[in-house]
Amino acid sequence: MTKVGFIGVGRIGQTIAYSTVMDGFVDEVFFYDIINELPEKFEHEMRHAMATRGIKTEIVATNSLGDVKGADIIVITAGRPRKPGMSRRDLFLENARVMRDLASQLPKGNPNAVYVMVTNPVDMMASVFQRFSGRTTISTGDQVETMRMRSFIAKRLGVPVREVEGFVGGEHGEDAVVLWGTVRVRGEPFREEGLSRREVEEYVKMIPDEIVRTLGATTWGPGTIIKDVIRSVALNEGRVMSIAFPREFQGEVIHVSEPVVVGRSIGPSLAPLLAEEDRRRLEEATGKLIEVFRANLKYLVPEERSLSPSRAM
Amino acid sequence: MTKVGFIGVGRIGQTIAYSTVMDGFVDEVFFYDIINELPEKFEHEMRHAMATRGIKTEIVATNSLGDVKGADIIVITAGRPRKPGMSRRDLFLENARVMRDLASQLPKGNPNAVYVMVTNPVDMMASVFQRFSGRTTISTGDQVETMRMRSFIAKRLGVPVREVEGFVGGEHGEDAVVLWGTVRVRGEPFREEGLSRREVEEYVKMIPDEIVRTLGATTWGPGTIIKDVIRSVALNEGRVMSIAFPREFQGEVIHVSEPVVVGRSIGPSLAPLLAEEDRRRLEEATGKLIEVFRANLKYLVPEERSLSPSRAM
Amino acid sequence: MTKVGFIGVGRIGQTIAYSTVMDGFVDEVFFYDIINELPEKFEHEMRHAMATRGIKTEIVATNSLGDVKGADIIVITAGRPRKPGMSRRDLFLENARVMRDLASQLPKGNPNAVYVMVTNPVDMMASVFQRFSGRTTISTGDQVETMRMRSFIAKRLGVPVREVEGFVGGEHGEDAVVLWGTVRVRGEPFREEGLSRREVEEYVKMIPDEIVRTLGATTWGPGTIIKDVIRSVALNEGRVMSIAFPREFQGEVIHVSEPVVVGRSIGPSLAPLLAEEDRRRLEEATGKLIEVFRANLKYLVPEERSLSPSRAM
Amino acid sequence: MTKVGFIGVGRIGQTIAYSTVMDGFVDEVFFYDIINELPEKFEHEMRHAMATRGIKTEIVATNSLGDVKGADIIVITAGRPRKPGMSRRDLFLENARVMRDLASQLPKGNPNAVYVMVTNPVDMMASVFQRFSGRTTISTGDQVETMRMRSFIAKRLGVPVREVEGFVGGEHGEDAVVLWGTVRVRGEPFREEGLSRREVEEYVKMIPDEIVRTLGATTWGPGTIIKDVIRSVALNEGRVMSIAFPREFQGEVIHVSEPVVVGRSIGPSLAPLLAEEDRRRLEEATGKLIEVFRANLKYLVPEERSLSPSRAM
Repeated sequence: MTKVGFIGVGRIGQTIAYSTVMDGFVDEVFFYDIINELPEKFEHEMRHAMATRGIKTEIVATNSLGDVKGADIIVITAGRPRKPGMSRRDLFLENARVMRDLASQLPKGNPNAVYVMVTNPVDMMASVFQRFSGRTTISTGDQVETMRMRSFIAKRLGVPVREVEGFVGGEHGEDAVVLWGTVRVRGEPFREEGLSRREVEEYVKMIPDEIVRTLGATTWGPGTIIKDVIRSVALNEGRVMSIAFPREFQGEVIHVSEPVVVGRSIGPSLAPLLAEEDRRRLEEATGKLIEVFRANLKYLVPEERSLSPSRAM
Repeated sequence: MTKVGFIGVGRIGQTIAYSTVMDGFVDEVFFYDIINELPEKFEHEMRHAMATRGIKTEIVATNSLGDVKGADIIVITAGRPRKPGMSRRDLFLENARVMRDLASQLPKGNPNAVYVMVTNPVDMMASVFQRFSGRTTISTGDQVETMRMRSFIAKRLGVPVREVEGFVGGEHGEDAVVLWGTVRVRGEPFREEGLSRREVEEYVKMIPDEIVRTLGATTWGPGTIIKDVIRSVALNEGRVMSIAFPREFQGEVIHVSEPVVVGRSIGPSLAPLLAEEDRRRLEEATGKLIEVFRANLKYLVPEERSLSPSRAM
Repeated sequence: MTKVGFIGVGRIGQTIAYSTVMDGFVDEVFFYDIINELPEKFEHEMRHAMATRGIKTEIVATNSLGDVKGADIIVITAGRPRKPGMSRRDLFLENARVMRDLASQLPKGNPNAVYVMVTNPVDMMASVFQRFSGRTTISTGDQVETMRMRSFIAKRLGVPVREVEGFVGGEHGEDAVVLWGTVRVRGEPFREEGLSRREVEEYVKMIPDEIVRTLGATTWGPGTIIKDVIRSVALNEGRVMSIAFPREFQGEVIHVSEPVVVGRSIGPSLAPLLAEEDRRRLEEATGKLIEVFRANLKYLVPEERSLSPSRAM
Repeated sequence: MTKVGFIGVGRIGQTIAYSTVMDGFVDEVFFYDIINELPEKFEHEMRHAMATRGIKTEIVATNSLGDVKGADIIVITAGRPRKPGMSRRDLFLENARVMRDLASQLPKGNPNAVYVMVTNPVDMMASVFQRFSGRTTISTGDQVETMRMRSFIAKRLGVPVREVEGFVGGEHGEDAVVLWGTVRVRGEPFREEGLSRREVEEYVKMIPDEIVRTLGATTWGPGTIIKDVIRSVALNEGRVMSIAFPREFQGEVIHVSEPVVVGRSIGPSLAPLLAEEDRRRLEEATGKLIEVFRANLKYLVPEERSLSPSRAM
């Protein structure tokens, strides 16, 4: 029995859940949301979709977190999106509180689950959840950027996307770094012929906002890519993906994306095998991230007094 | 080469297109919409999704109808949804004008396409498009209601949805009729034990509005079900589905849903094989529909003068 | 839980079983054979194959028929192939005895299964099994010939096989008849341009022997086609296929292939919707078959005395 | 266009080819064999199978090696199986001559192909082919043993195979070594509770012979596992698999299986990330292999005089 819990079934949560169920590899799913009737009505939609394919995944739709039990994988999309005028710190604080709350409730019923963070800022949210839950938490991190990078190069150079390899790492979002030593086209190292590194980096940075401006949100891309992360865990496929898994750095457990083997277990990381230049850029990203994380954590700390991290990693 | 055109890539159009491309049976798709940048940004999202799966479907994203060429199947979702305060007739007129317009432009570049209507009121829009284009047009009609009916019975009786058979026919929407002679559970005719016919009929009628109220629109259910209609045509699967295909009735070509073999060709209809009671109800539905259709057509006629139907079916 | 039993896991049984398990729609399979260690060693092979795909179908491998229990579908390939010098009647008698034996043992543990006959002569074996078991038995009949016909026309006319529709019916084997009224290419009725009806009929008749001469047996074609019959039942797909299901004719329950809706339930037949010429040819085939069946049955009858058919259909 | 050539379509070649085509990720396949009519008759079987699924992969069936052109991947199963009384050296020599011959002919028409060796002794055959062709050649090596190991542990401990991780490396066949440091069950390192390391190692060593004794050959397991190697290359999945890719060792290019990232490019190897004990065992295996390889090569050398390796790796 493969069981997957979806904590939050707003637009991105629904897209991941739909993509997951349609792929046929799960036996039971949980749809949880704090919004009344939302999980239940989404269940109806899913049942209609499953009927035409003969899919028989069990569905538990609920507004009660306690109903999510015995999951192998928990996908967290709960929280708020960043709104105009909202500072990054405000976003951090607001969603960090949600994570702290989820971290105090979910592990009891789902002690062996792999927790997959999707809520933004995704890397720090993964670290917060890990801190308060003590459970293995991964951030889907830069696997989305990785696929955006590949698809852009493929389109611009007119090759099938299967012919483009390589990874984006570091922080999810604007500070992501293309690991150029890993990028290959038709099996050959990337050369700036007809397409510059800068253009690729620009695309990865700018495209999410452009999509959001027209479509209101990014859903199909991240939804499918994150589904494939879930699939690689659930079927033990062992694909190498650029996600963030917990590691200790300067005494802090943090999440930074790098190429990692994703199977029933997460790891090992392929970072030691990267070119020196790529390793250096990953370290820089890590250094920056930890600084921001600590700064943000300070604001969470006063509230945190009575709550100590539930267990070491 | 299997080519599918999507005329309209709003929410439902996107869901059908996503589901279609991910299913892996198409070589090329066209995303058309009148909204600027919408097809293009949707293309980006789709490319990101395709990258993770290694899918290499060609995409043409365009605001120009003339770019949609050589399609085998054209899926029409363009038009307006019904808004509060809008009469059914107003909706008919507004979308009928869209169809008349599309009918004058699409067939030239896509002479051999099967046209699949999704825009509401779907059955009449199929008839309008057929009238002005002279091309084989099907309405996805009651296949959506069919799957809703099966999924409801399955859930209420606690059986896998694969164990429920049967069809809903007639008009798409509130006047759809459950063809009870076709309904079977675990291979046995439906009996009102623990679940009444009335409850089933109520569910089919009410559930779309309930979903819309909470989720804003019905997408996952119809999107997947309509994708399967497209798939059955594209792969020549020959599945029996409750869709509406053109037939002459009292001198008018109209669309009413009934169980039909859906393959490379559409048909034959299984209506002659239905129980008498079911056939009678389908005829009633047809009679009602033709009346409403004629009444609505009258308002379209004055504009229509100069435009005669382009060719007989 | 979808459970499928394979009675006989020789070469064709293995191919069907492999194709079925890899398609991912079954939860449990039974591998039965009278040959010692054969089911067990095949189980090992299947487990190795399932490991790479993350498939977790349960397998019961056994030499004891009593271990096959609670199946939804039972696929029978047990029996002997026809050997040089063996008359058709000898083949009938030998395999009919196997069926009579299976019919006395399988239904008790599998009362609700659909029985799918593959052993030759397949139509008569289905009738024999039905006669002695009283259970719904279908013969995969001419669905194999149907696909051979389509693939030949496709190759010869240079069109994708998806573009060829139509069915072969009547008896499985040399006396199968192409139902020409159903054959369409690119949506148009078959015309003898560049390819004659005779050539098509010859191909369908001759190709199995030609394959057997070089490859030793026909496996990949029938294996996949029969898997799709199983799939259409298991997932309630409702595809129209040319298989034989039981019907009474001149007081005898016999099996003749005609286009039939294959879902959780088998039927209805589309025979009443066929062109007159096609219907006539099917009737002729039925007449011939019943004669041969009766003649063969006579030789089984003396042994049959004490054994009366277990229950009416 | 994804094109895959199958050099040899005997029993294992057919199984890999069938599994590949049915998986739907290839556009064109080549079936080559020296046996007359074999590729052609196999093509017929495949066309029948493809018809029921609507698959439209192009097929070129040929007895002429020159017809295999423009392939992305070439799968070599040609050669002889080991027969009773035949020494390992004899098998090496016989098949090495086949490889030398293929190496002189295939690269010209397929300059960019990845060559996937399946013929036994598979690792040395890969080295021979690489030596004479100068093209990237991989041996499917111990990925088959890897899946056998996982499936055995899963069955014996009663867990789904998805819950077992780990690799077998070194030489393909009896001298393969379980890399115990990589083996995990339900996410935890393997512990000898209820199942000893020795039992697992015995199984991996003995099961092929046991299958061959009863079924005549191992096909379903290796066929599917090798298909997944092909798939991971063709779709650029980046799965980690235990295959052998060329590396220089003591001045000789040889093939030894270790966990490697398999995508559009092959590599990097994860060997540097293994536990010391596992690395040591891989090195031992490499040392043994190179010795045998050199001993065998000596017998090929006299014939080789005039033929020097076509280019450096």
